[in-house]
Amino acid sequence: MKSAILTVGTELLFGQISNSNSVYLSQQLNNLGIDVLYHYTVGDNPKRLTKMICKAFADCDLVITTGGLGPTQDDLTKESAAKVFNDELIIHQDILNELESYSKRMNVTMTDNNRKQAYLPSRAFRFDNESGTAPGFSLEENGKTIICLPGPPREMTQMFEQEVKPYLLKKTDDVIYYKLIRTFGIGESMLETELKQWIDVQTDPTLATYAKEGEAYLRIASKRSTLEEAKSAVDDMIQNINQKIGQYIYSYDGEDLFEVVAKKLIEKNISISSAESCTGGLFGKTLTDVSGISAVYNRGFITYSNQAKMEELGVKAETLEKFGAVSEETAVEMTEGLKRVSGSRLCISVTGISGPEGGTEEKPVGLVYICASLDDKRVCKEFRIRNISRSWNRNYTLLCMLDMVNRLIDQN
Amino acid sequence: MKSAILTVGTELLFGQISNSNSVYLSQQLNNLGIDVLYHYTVGDNPKRLTKMICKAFADCDLVITTGGLGPTQDDLTKESAAKVFNDELIIHQDILNELESYSKRMNVTMTDNNRKQAYLPSRAFRFDNESGTAPGFSLEENGKTIICLPGPPREMTQMFEQEVKPYLLKKTDDVIYYKLIRTFGIGESMLETELKQWIDVQTDPTLATYAKEGEAYLRIASKRSTLEEAKSAVDDMIQNINQKIGQYIYSYDGEDLFEVVAKKLIEKNISISSAESCTGGLFGKTLTDVSGISAVYNRGFITYSNQAKMEELGVKAETLEKFGAVSEETAVEMTEGLKRVSGSRLCISVTGISGPEGGTEEKPVGLVYICASLDDKRVCKEFRIRNISRSWNRNYTLLCMLDMVNRLIDQN
Repeated sequence: MKSAILTVGTELLFGQISNSNSVYLSQQLNNLGIDVLYHYTVGDNPKRLTKMICKAFADCDLVITTGGLGPTQDDLTKESAAKVFNDELIIHQDILNELESYSKRMNVTMTDNNRKQAYLPSRAFRFDNESGTAPGFSLEENGKTIICLPGPPREMTQMFEQEVKPYLLKKTDDVIYYKLIRTFGIGESMLETELKQWIDVQTDPTLATYAKEGEAYLRIASKRSTLEEAKSAVDDMIQNINQKIGQYIYSYDGEDLFEVVAKKLIEKNISISSAESCTGGLFGKTLTDVSGISAVYNRGFITYSNQAKMEELGVKAETLEKFGAVSEETAVEMTEGLKRVSGSRLCISVTGISGPEGGTEEKPVGLVYICASLDDKRVCKEFRIRNISRSWNRNYTLLCMLDMVNRLIDQN
Repeated sequence: MKSAILTVGTELLFGQISNSNSVYLSQQLNNLGIDVLYHYTVGDNPKRLTKMICKAFADCDLVITTGGLGPTQDDLTKESAAKVFNDELIIHQDILNELESYSKRMNVTMTDNNRKQAYLPSRAFRFDNESGTAPGFSLEENGKTIICLPGPPREMTQMFEQEVKPYLLKKTDDVIYYKLIRTFGIGESMLETELKQWIDVQTDPTLATYAKEGEAYLRIASKRSTLEEAKSAVDDMIQNINQKIGQYIYSYDGEDLFEVVAKKLIEKNISISSAESCTGGLFGKTLTDVSGISAVYNRGFITYSNQAKMEELGVKAETLEKFGAVSEETAVEMTEGLKRVSGSRLCISVTGISGPEGGTEEKPVGLVYICASLDDKRVCKEFRIRNISRSWNRNYTLLCMLDMVNRLIDQN
């Protein structure tokens, strides 16, 4: 199946937001074995939008749109799609009822704008919106299918995952099976070099490497007539790959490192506390992104000032004076203090220079010390992170922390 | 002038990279007063690319491409552009010389692939590439202009800034001036309803509303022959808008709420500490995203467990037992304890249920108490956040916290 992604929204043409919907949908469609031939973006202009939908169908069977389904006047995707598919908008009483009960529940007055969301093309197959009010839908005619999804990424991805994916799966013949391997500590070039012998001769399964924010991904995909065949081809390849780069792999299922770590902590019932300086709460925030973490996450300290390091964690004034706040000695005292105060089995602390200011020749931006202990075992490491930006440096520091925790748990 | 941006690269259609070139070029062109009508993306496929360039010129005078100028076999933008403009590629001796001296300098052998980069359309106006080897160029014919730029963002943006911008400035008459107003506490529908009288009759300045993660944006733009005229038209409209929805506006310059708050804290030298339960460090993390915040941010507590709330902030066991961890009483005691421990002028605490588990009929997911104090003034508020997802609930809680801090500072 050949497809095009059509994102609608003047804000995209102003460059006010990045087009994350096209990225997400491209990945998803490719994973389903559906070729993506084009991306189109058009503003909130019904004439251009209608023309664009027609154009997109010139050499594609499937067009997925995002945006323009909302309640305001410039939301006109439904009208345009109906026009191209020779249909008209009618009010859907069930949607109207839901909108009304929603307004009642939220104690807000329903405006005419809101009511507009109850209109869909008469032949539309509806996709529910779990996290918003605008439903999505599909329309089919003469072997052509349009799928219209809401613009807000959260609503769109949830709708795609829960409703559109099963709908599309019914339309394809071959089965695609893939694994997304995630690694930390090896760059994309090195990953590619290590796996060259398979990448160079790949037909099926295919191997593709991606780099993202200090991590390297590896996608192994097989397209066969049965799931068993595809699965076995992918699993064989994973065995080969494991022998080469197994030590860098933390997930075979595309999970984030923080999810892997949180899951292990909960499963093994290891209590954890954190003390953060340069990351300012990022570690705590990330771990508590995971629901259920309250069973093991006890507390965190954001000891941003030296005063806080001394008062909350008992870091000695002499240590701060002699070695500085960004030093192995301070990191170790932070972790020891945290252990005393929290009583958690796993304690991790971090201190570093995130920049862009604050670096010196001796202690440049990107210098980070991480100290973690699990029961009686303690590790402290110095990192010299490539200084890209404050936000990148902090995110990479987070990954180093999670990686250290992950390895400590595995060695336990 | 009406323009389209055409990005070339199969990796975009796989969703392997985000399309930052389109975002950058959209911003730049709009700032130059050049309307961007479309974004197109096509893979490394010369037939589709050529067709796409033709399509793009159907209702645009200017098409800017990025990508496909490199040395490898799938780099075919030059060929396609030349074809559409009835030109042919010829070797440019000056480029070849530069490539040769570059190879010599880098001590690498020049391949046939590299030599390919010395070919440009015969009528091309060349743009130098300061940070790469592939030059860009423009071609004009019958009032239509194509500008072909390299794909790597660093090369592209540098070339645009230094060479393309001056080239385009010669072609435009009008000036665009705009303001991006950001609000919190008013939905997009309500915003549009409030501003209906201007939105309905808009010609210039134009008003557009956007929704994003619990916030509503408003873009006011004017296109006039001089900057003064455009600026004054926008400023007049802002005066009108202020009277209607001024209380919800926190930025007139597109800044994030956390940036606005951090800036005010630093400017007014107000020390701040935080105590977070349900947000798990998100507030601290967000505030410390801002460089220079260490001047005022003292410390944070992530008191995730009841034990931590009692031990670190002195919340009473009776309070937790009688009213629960998620209660106004607990929030107030957290803030009072934080004040005692940190000595910061501004103290903010939060306790709530982020879900998806943990809600009851009496205390549903989304119930949040935020308590903030600045010197002797204290505010505590109950929020019943629409439960969308753990991550959304936490992000919305963060915005409520920042909004409360922002108002406290303003009232000070």
